[in-house]
Amino acid sequence: MRILVISGANLNKLGQREKIYGDFTLDELKNQLTAYAGAAELEFFTSNMEGEIIEAVQSCDADAIIINAGGYSHTSVAIADALAMSTALKIEVHLTNIYSREPYRHFSVTGSKCDGVITGLGIDGYKAAIDVIKRRIK
Amino acid sequence: MRILVISGANLNKLGQREKIYGDFTLDELKNQLTAYAGAAELEFFTSNMEGEIIEAVQSCDADAIIINAGGYSHTSVAIADALAMSTALKIEVHLTNIYSREPYRHFSVTGSKCDGVITGLGIDGYKAAIDVIKRRIK
Amino acid sequence: MRILVISGANLNKLGQREKIYGDFTLDELKNQLTAYAGAAELEFFTSNMEGEIIEAVQSCDADAIIINAGGYSHTSVAIADALAMSTALKIEVHLTNIYSREPYRHFSVTGSKCDGVITGLGIDGYKAAIDVIKRRIK
Amino acid sequence: MRILVISGANLNKLGQREKIYGDFTLDELKNQLTAYAGAAELEFFTSNMEGEIIEAVQSCDADAIIINAGGYSHTSVAIADALAMSTALKIEVHLTNIYSREPYRHFSVTGSKCDGVITGLGIDGYKAAIDVIKRRIK
Amino acid sequence: MRILVISGANLNKLGQREKIYGDFTLDELKNQLTAYAGAAELEFFTSNMEGEIIEAVQSCDADAIIINAGGYSHTSVAIADALAMSTALKIEVHLTNIYSREPYRHFSVTGSKCDGVITGLGIDGYKAAIDVIKRRIK
Amino acid sequence: MRILVISGANLNKLGQREKIYGDFTLDELKNQLTAYAGAAELEFFTSNMEGEIIEAVQSCDADAIIINAGGYSHTSVAIADALAMSTALKIEVHLTNIYSREPYRHFSVTGSKCDGVITGLGIDGYKAAIDVIKRRIK
Amino acid sequence: MRILVISGANLNKLGQREKIYGDFTLDELKNQLTAYAGAAELEFFTSNMEGEIIEAVQSCDADAIIINAGGYSHTSVAIADALAMSTALKIEVHLTNIYSREPYRHFSVTGSKCDGVITGLGIDGYKAAIDVIKRRIK
Amino acid sequence: MRILVISGANLNKLGQREKIYGDFTLDELKNQLTAYAGAAELEFFTSNMEGEIIEAVQSCDADAIIINAGGYSHTSVAIADALAMSTALKIEVHLTNIYSREPYRHFSVTGSKCDGVITGLGIDGYKAAIDVIKRRIK
Amino acid sequence: MRILVISGANLNKLGQREKIYGDFTLDELKNQLTAYAGAAELEFFTSNMEGEIIEAVQSCDADAIIINAGGYSHTSVAIADALAMSTALKIEVHLTNIYSREPYRHFSVTGSKCDGVITGLGIDGYKAAIDVIKRRIK
Amino acid sequence: MRILVISGANLNKLGQREKIYGDFTLDELKNQLTAYAGAAELEFFTSNMEGEIIEAVQSCDADAIIINAGGYSHTSVAIADALAMSTALKIEVHLTNIYSREPYRHFSVTGSKCDGVITGLGIDGYKAAIDVIKRRIK
Amino acid sequence: MRILVISGANLNKLGQREKIYGDFTLDELKNQLTAYAGAAELEFFTSNMEGEIIEAVQSCDADAIIINAGGYSHTSVAIADALAMSTALKIEVHLTNIYSREPYRHFSVTGSKCDGVITGLGIDGYKAAIDVIKRRIK
Amino acid sequence: MRILVISGANLNKLGQREKIYGDFTLDELKNQLTAYAGAAELEFFTSNMEGEIIEAVQSCDADAIIINAGGYSHTSVAIADALAMSTALKIEVHLTNIYSREPYRHFSVTGSKCDGVITGLGIDGYKAAIDVIKRRIK
Repeated sequence: MRILVISGANLNKLGQREKIYGDFTLDELKNQLTAYAGAAELEFFTSNMEGEIIEAVQSCDADAIIINAGGYSHTSVAIADALAMSTALKIEVHLTNIYSREPYRHFSVTGSKCDGVITGLGIDGYKAAIDVIKRRIK
Repeated sequence: MRILVISGANLNKLGQREKIYGDFTLDELKNQLTAYAGAAELEFFTSNMEGEIIEAVQSCDADAIIINAGGYSHTSVAIADALAMSTALKIEVHLTNIYSREPYRHFSVTGSKCDGVITGLGIDGYKAAIDVIKRRIK
Repeated sequence: MRILVISGANLNKLGQREKIYGDFTLDELKNQLTAYAGAAELEFFTSNMEGEIIEAVQSCDADAIIINAGGYSHTSVAIADALAMSTALKIEVHLTNIYSREPYRHFSVTGSKCDGVITGLGIDGYKAAIDVIKRRIK
Repeated sequence: MRILVISGANLNKLGQREKIYGDFTLDELKNQLTAYAGAAELEFFTSNMEGEIIEAVQSCDADAIIINAGGYSHTSVAIADALAMSTALKIEVHLTNIYSREPYRHFSVTGSKCDGVITGLGIDGYKAAIDVIKRRIK
Repeated sequence: MRILVISGANLNKLGQREKIYGDFTLDELKNQLTAYAGAAELEFFTSNMEGEIIEAVQSCDADAIIINAGGYSHTSVAIADALAMSTALKIEVHLTNIYSREPYRHFSVTGSKCDGVITGLGIDGYKAAIDVIKRRIK
Repeated sequence: MRILVISGANLNKLGQREKIYGDFTLDELKNQLTAYAGAAELEFFTSNMEGEIIEAVQSCDADAIIINAGGYSHTSVAIADALAMSTALKIEVHLTNIYSREPYRHFSVTGSKCDGVITGLGIDGYKAAIDVIKRRIK
Repeated sequence: MRILVISGANLNKLGQREKIYGDFTLDELKNQLTAYAGAAELEFFTSNMEGEIIEAVQSCDADAIIINAGGYSHTSVAIADALAMSTALKIEVHLTNIYSREPYRHFSVTGSKCDGVITGLGIDGYKAAIDVIKRRIK
Repeated sequence: MRILVISGANLNKLGQREKIYGDFTLDELKNQLTAYAGAAELEFFTSNMEGEIIEAVQSCDADAIIINAGGYSHTSVAIADALAMSTALKIEVHLTNIYSREPYRHFSVTGSKCDGVITGLGIDGYKAAIDVIKRRIK
Repeated sequence: MRILVISGANLNKLGQREKIYGDFTLDELKNQLTAYAGAAELEFFTSNMEGEIIEAVQSCDADAIIINAGGYSHTSVAIADALAMSTALKIEVHLTNIYSREPYRHFSVTGSKCDGVITGLGIDGYKAAIDVIKRRIK
Repeated sequence: MRILVISGANLNKLGQREKIYGDFTLDELKNQLTAYAGAAELEFFTSNMEGEIIEAVQSCDADAIIINAGGYSHTSVAIADALAMSTALKIEVHLTNIYSREPYRHFSVTGSKCDGVITGLGIDGYKAAIDVIKRRIK
Repeated sequence: MRILVISGANLNKLGQREKIYGDFTLDELKNQLTAYAGAAELEFFTSNMEGEIIEAVQSCDADAIIINAGGYSHTSVAIADALAMSTALKIEVHLTNIYSREPYRHFSVTGSKCDGVITGLGIDGYKAAIDVIKRRIK
Repeated sequence: MRILVISGANLNKLGQREKIYGDFTLDELKNQLTAYAGAAELEFFTSNMEGEIIEAVQSCDADAIIINAGGYSHTSVAIADALAMSTALKIEVHLTNIYSREPYRHFSVTGSKCDGVITGLGIDGYKAAIDVIKRRIK
């Protein structure tokens, strides 16, 4: 089983962002997830470019996608359109609880085109996504 | 470790509801979760009464709460106030992806007062919540 | 044929409410309806508790439901969810014309999950509902 | 007793419209109602013209009006003004449940100037209106 | 003179809530008010249940009501309907200044059906309500 | 202890305004309050000028302010800014219940910068404000 | 000089409408205006049909138009488009003060395409319009 | 008969303002109106101060008020409150057609408390107001 | 092949309207289209009456409809309902680009019930519609 | 004559998208258009990157642009700004009728800066655009 | 060159306001600016009165205006009208970044009638305004 | 001292854009600013790509950032997030007064995360930004 983990806008800067995002870097996140995933093979795609994220979704042939599009989650109809087209199992993850932040972060356009959304649980949210994927895809 | 699992409005009728909620009953859900939780002790509280849910949250002395308040999630300031007061680890779970349903289900007042929210992943969402709780509380 | 007549918030106080609701008590309403229904058996459920109304809808095994949820009609997603699940013939009745009162009474969340809504016709609205039910269920 | 039954925009095309409106024609509707009304004399006025409907309401000397203005119901202040002026007993009928359709059909401007509104019950809604009128006017 | 003091959602937890509500318990609040009221007899009703609050208002035969419905204040048409029906002198009290908190606390549906509203003055708000009642009812 | 009582737009015309404001003049109001205040010294400032009210707040060296800015309450960011700057105990009073009047009177910009707001209780509201101030400032 | 006076929806029923419109009939209005206009020749066009009003505006070769489109004033882009095209001097008149009635009467789509609007002054508003026209067109 | 003509914000600068307001000065306007008024005595009050306009309305003992509050028309609840209190015949005049300018000029708070509003007709609007007043007050 | 070309409100006045609509008359438009259509037979229906347009759509037995309802496009649910019922190929045409004009012209209710919409291309838009129809219907 | 055909977000995936977009690939679309265009030379630019589309518009020296920016059409002020700057003839094409889909697709920011917009007609929409361009540019 | 520096509501209290405004007094601000302006002559006008600010703008014969109207910036159509009439170079300055404060401070009505707006840069904003004026007026 | 000057969407086309932006090219702007900055070293980053702007902000090690993100200013949460993370002194500059243009340009998401915003002053706005930076960073 292969899982594509997409990290969007400003996630390459984890570890240097506000405390609410946690104190780990994106590399540390990747390492933790890889270790956690075990037999499931993780591929990572990281970009600050909306269009590159669209293409990563379009060209994805993994069994599942874990996507955190960062600030694009709340505005990008174009990424959402790409997700809607994909047949992979799709789970959106947000490190912070988007319901308890600014109103413009409450809705996730991209999340509405995923199977599920996990928000507010930090790295545990990613691990939970991996667990669900493993449970569903064999 | 003890976890209180709160099931709110109409969740007592799982198995008889629309397909989108799955085909399992609340008892089957409970049994699956109990088996899954292992050493973590699950307590279940189920009610269609907004006020009883408030009081269940108020009187809860478990380490964590998994709450699915059903239709109340989107309107109850009162339950949200109770959650805000609680010091337990709180995770809201929705069986369906509330982002891809009617607009009035997009926002979760109660979820905004939880640590995290998991939506759209069916029973797997509950299991993911248990995993996160176990990882965080020892 | 059996019909469940649900009376929600503040309807137990008919006769003491503002003139717009009429000058009859709930008991007088029940008696009139029972007499009017003839061979159709009426069961009455009256409660000011949102959760109890949900459970009355859930446990209803009558052929049809006539519901007037009072002030809950305009806000209760939870009662609406219960109605959506029910296979009975469902008709909502309001004593007053909710279109000509305060704006927050114009929409009926619960009515949107019923087969039909009759509003503004006082007791005649209930009688009309009974007639329709009789015509449709034999 | 005389009742004016007004059929507005596109109701002349019943039988050819979407299934939600039923499979009967306007003539069949009229025949059923005439038979049902018995001693009460029904007059029918049918028009796709907003202004003609206004004038039908203005010049009506019947005891009661049953009006289904079709698409005009949701927008016509002018028809509503005519109804407000009329002293007849006025009941608006919609074949479909306007609460469970598009949001722009939820409110009825014309209905807000009638005594009552019956929605979602098909031909039975018209029959119920006739019953109420008979009960109230003798 | 008898005054009914209604405490709604989460007020039973005073003393354990956020600092903004003060550091006293509900019992301490009651004791202070009873002492303050002197010859005026205070009755206390406390509930987290919307429906029970409705019924407390309905069955109230005291001369006046002091109500703090907690989170229900901002949403409950049903409690507001009950208050509208009551002939007692009605004063709503909020411990915190609802105008300087979240926007969804700015308006009080229930307050709009009371004679007056006192907000932001802590226990002093209750005492002020008692004073006003004493001055008006003799 | 000294209290500044600010009367804003059109309050100089009490006694000649609509009945909802009561039948007393501003002088009668002042006399009643002075008598009621006893040892607490009341200073009165009355103006129809938004800017003068700002300056009255700015230059106030009393222990507390009771302010009723009249129509400015609902629109004046500038008076609200002055109140925010003041360290006096500030209580806003409205003679009428602003929650049960026109929507544009529901929110009080100036009230959001006071410690508390008392609305709907006529002169009793002013007296209650004096009581609260006396209780808090010694 | 010739002036076209257009009377739209429900104005043919003046004298039978709510008191706010006055107690005169349309004929009385016409007679008064004709007498008042003196040398200026008045032509009257009265219709409840939106399309006929459009065409009356289109085909108008008078020097000026006085239009009261009734309920259409607040919704008809089509009449407004016709007015925008006309080179006559155009004055809209409303018998009642549309600013102090329901919010949906506050804006006049058709008025926004006229030279001026006179509202709230009854027949005097029409006379004022005639005066203005006489003063401007010679 | 005496008429108070109130000129509010920036009207003292007529003649120097944008062309839409006309090319006459306030003095020229006054002279024209005085000449036009004939036996009716005009008093003029001009101020850029919201509070002074309030007081001019409050202290007015003329038979009628013609008010153009300038930019305050669209925002001043306080001036509107003063007008509501006045028993004079009140007509608001705007030189320009406020319906065909920026949306924030469409509604007139102060106009809603006058008997009528005349807009878009330049000086002719003032003259029309005088005519109406003369016709109504004798 | 037969095509019905419907011209709604104010289109009969082409050539006399604002420049944005072009400088040709409706007759010139018709002639150009007839010449352009060649073997496809064009029928023209022109009316300023909403109801007549509804009936033209209802009674249409042509293979396709090209409709420009003018100002009705943005408000008429009733015409939209008629279009929804029709099985003809339906293309809406606007001479001007409705996206770059007033906001109330941005959405086309009637266009939402057509197969396609062409806007902003003047007569070329009609010709394009004819081309598409010819390509699709043979 | 040269025409630049811009295909934006997710259009590179035509043929694999939802049925509503048709069953042809982008290459098939291009081939059809090239064949159709005849003497007019088509250049194709395809990108999922908002910024690349901006630059394609900026650097375009063709006589005309046919643009379908996909999901960016509804949100990109930046592409709209680029189009506003361009002197080419600009026609926006959407394969689907954006008026009959989700509300957030109803308005086209980019379309508002084009000469015209064609929506809902599939490949025929592109062909129609080519025809119009040919007719206008020689 | 002469520059008028207008300080509106509550700016006379600088040094005593919240920290966000800085710790300098208005006199210190004036001194700093005078020193900074060098050969350019600064005139200062300070008032809490909306009307006085209007008149300061009206009577200004300086080459340029630097205006900070305080809380009036966000609400005063009347001051904006005065600015619109002025031919001076006009720059609005806010000490704080109004984009990162409460929503009702985001838009500046008065700023929309100035040449430019500088916000968030404290005294440096005023100095920048002086620099720009010097650069533009010689 | 080093300053990064970021030019976003369509700014590379200065000189060819609408007059409101001025008649200088981006190179001319850069040259002017470099000359003006003197000892302060300017670095220029120009891109039409939202993601590249994000990365320019992320990787910036200059003392200050002057950013004009063009059309992205009003929509890009992602660029705003990058700015929020940066510890540089950040000033946003707009060539035009965004308060006096289309409403969707009034708010600047990116500006809300900068220290200050300068708008409407053309190149002078950039120079003012440089001045402020020099004054603050030494």
